[in-house]
Amino acid sequence: MSSEDQLIERVCRKFPSGTPLVRTGIGDDAAVIRPTRRTEWVITTDAFLENVHFLRRVHPPKAVGYKALARSTSDIAAMGARPRYFLLTLALPDSCTGKWLDEFLGGMVIAARRFGLSLVGGDTTKHRTVMISLTVIGEVDSGRAILRAGARPGDLLCVSGKLGEAELGLRLVLKGLHTKKRWENLAKKHLYPEPRLALGQWLAARRIATSMIDTSDGLSTDLGHICKASGVGASVWADKIPLASVPPELKRKGLDAMRLALDGGEDYELLFTVPKRFARRLPRTVTGVPITVIGEITNGKEISLIDFRGRKSSLLPAGWDPFRKG
Amino acid sequence: MSSEDQLIERVCRKFPSGTPLVRTGIGDDAAVIRPTRRTEWVITTDAFLENVHFLRRVHPPKAVGYKALARSTSDIAAMGARPRYFLLTLALPDSCTGKWLDEFLGGMVIAARRFGLSLVGGDTTKHRTVMISLTVIGEVDSGRAILRAGARPGDLLCVSGKLGEAELGLRLVLKGLHTKKRWENLAKKHLYPEPRLALGQWLAARRIATSMIDTSDGLSTDLGHICKASGVGASVWADKIPLASVPPELKRKGLDAMRLALDGGEDYELLFTVPKRFARRLPRTVTGVPITVIGEITNGKEISLIDFRGRKSSLLPAGWDPFRKG
Repeated sequence: MSSEDQLIERVCRKFPSGTPLVRTGIGDDAAVIRPTRRTEWVITTDAFLENVHFLRRVHPPKAVGYKALARSTSDIAAMGARPRYFLLTLALPDSCTGKWLDEFLGGMVIAARRFGLSLVGGDTTKHRTVMISLTVIGEVDSGRAILRAGARPGDLLCVSGKLGEAELGLRLVLKGLHTKKRWENLAKKHLYPEPRLALGQWLAARRIATSMIDTSDGLSTDLGHICKASGVGASVWADKIPLASVPPELKRKGLDAMRLALDGGEDYELLFTVPKRFARRLPRTVTGVPITVIGEITNGKEISLIDFRGRKSSLLPAGWDPFRKG
Repeated sequence: MSSEDQLIERVCRKFPSGTPLVRTGIGDDAAVIRPTRRTEWVITTDAFLENVHFLRRVHPPKAVGYKALARSTSDIAAMGARPRYFLLTLALPDSCTGKWLDEFLGGMVIAARRFGLSLVGGDTTKHRTVMISLTVIGEVDSGRAILRAGARPGDLLCVSGKLGEAELGLRLVLKGLHTKKRWENLAKKHLYPEPRLALGQWLAARRIATSMIDTSDGLSTDLGHICKASGVGASVWADKIPLASVPPELKRKGLDAMRLALDGGEDYELLFTVPKRFARRLPRTVTGVPITVIGEITNGKEISLIDFRGRKSSLLPAGWDPFRKG
């Protein structure tokens, strides 16, 4: 790799260009995009850093590329929006500008196609460790975006998929256990998470949800964000939480499905609230993704966990926080 | 600093919220923005990394915050667009979450006010070194953005301000000489560059320029980008280039004004082309910024420097490239 221009050309070759509303994409000072009528823009940005969010020695570059884009796109899903464009800022050590970069881009191309995203710009530079920063832009019909604020007392608290699976996958990957054939599927949700785009858009189109967030930091932390933004509390029914299936052998190693579900991050499921009167309009699955009612929104500010015997305890945020002292 | 939420609150307090077209800004999964009618969106993203783009031990945090936003906004100026919104991704070591962060944000707030930018989102995380990634969004009347492609043989090549001043400033700062009173002004363009927003918009409104770029990597490199995108060559007249004034004492230390002008990066001036028939519509200054004709666009692909005696030599890209072998 001899110059930044060659690196940019290599990125461009991987991603097809020529999206109708993009006047100018990669290769100018900035991208120029014509907005669609009657839509609003939804914009999010995220960092995905070596040694903070992934480890080069354990995470395959293909998974790093896929996941970097998937986790940013999950924020678009959590607004009920349709993904459209993204910008990629990439800082790389020299040793990563060859095969590593190709596999990384390969994973990102798969994600971009799956989510309907076009690359329209970015920046490349050199750095001692790999640093990825993504900006993803989506569109939503005017006024239909689902915010964190909006949950009201009495609303049902719902979640898609299962909680704790990504954290379980992370533990296996860190211990190198995911290469065992019988456990490789358990690592998939950690390596290749699936933003719940169809469900988010389904909810936005029907105006059923009063608030929504994606579970990136863990249920105990993300529910706190909804409650804070909406000025409400919540009760979570422990026996309703859709838990990851932890194999007995791993349970014996101390992996507890409930703990994984409450505090495990990166599931990228949708956590949303629905007024009770809409409950019957909520199917058990939307485009194949199961939906479970796991609690309800309450007055006040307290967030409680109601256990199997009806006992109540405080559910304190214990999910992922890069600045928490260990 | 005990949590990411507290860090985000600290950032939010610095930046005023409540811009009319921003439905949801900081604090949700993504920002929601209503586009203005008859405008297109201009979007750029850039990384500004410790030990690559700045050094914590020599660059004041206020200058880091100001410059990070100024250099990204310069890409908006280079399209002829008006800056509107930005997203800030910030990775920090624990030691930078106190006073350093306050001063950094202070510099960024000054830049945001000056350029007319509202913070609408971002991401914060922990990292061993400071990593800043910015996405800046501007607006331009439909079809008026000035691209790199569009220069035609015979067009005049123009540049704003002086070239080489930022590189001169960088050399002084690296040697600690900028603290000497008589030289502190020379460091200003390196520490606090000024994106040429008014000039860019002036050119876009009058449809005078056929192509434009900002001089972030140095004249020899950035002119190459215009020529490549436009499929043309260029002749640069050495005696017309507006050079930095290098004090005799620094000239004796080997600082050559012409070398600084040709290959020095980060001036963030505008380099643009204008058909000869519009030449008389081009004033000597626009909103106080001098404009100089420094050459012309030619057939073919060669980029030449015509020296003081009329001798021609190739002008090879020798500006900033993070991946060039030293």
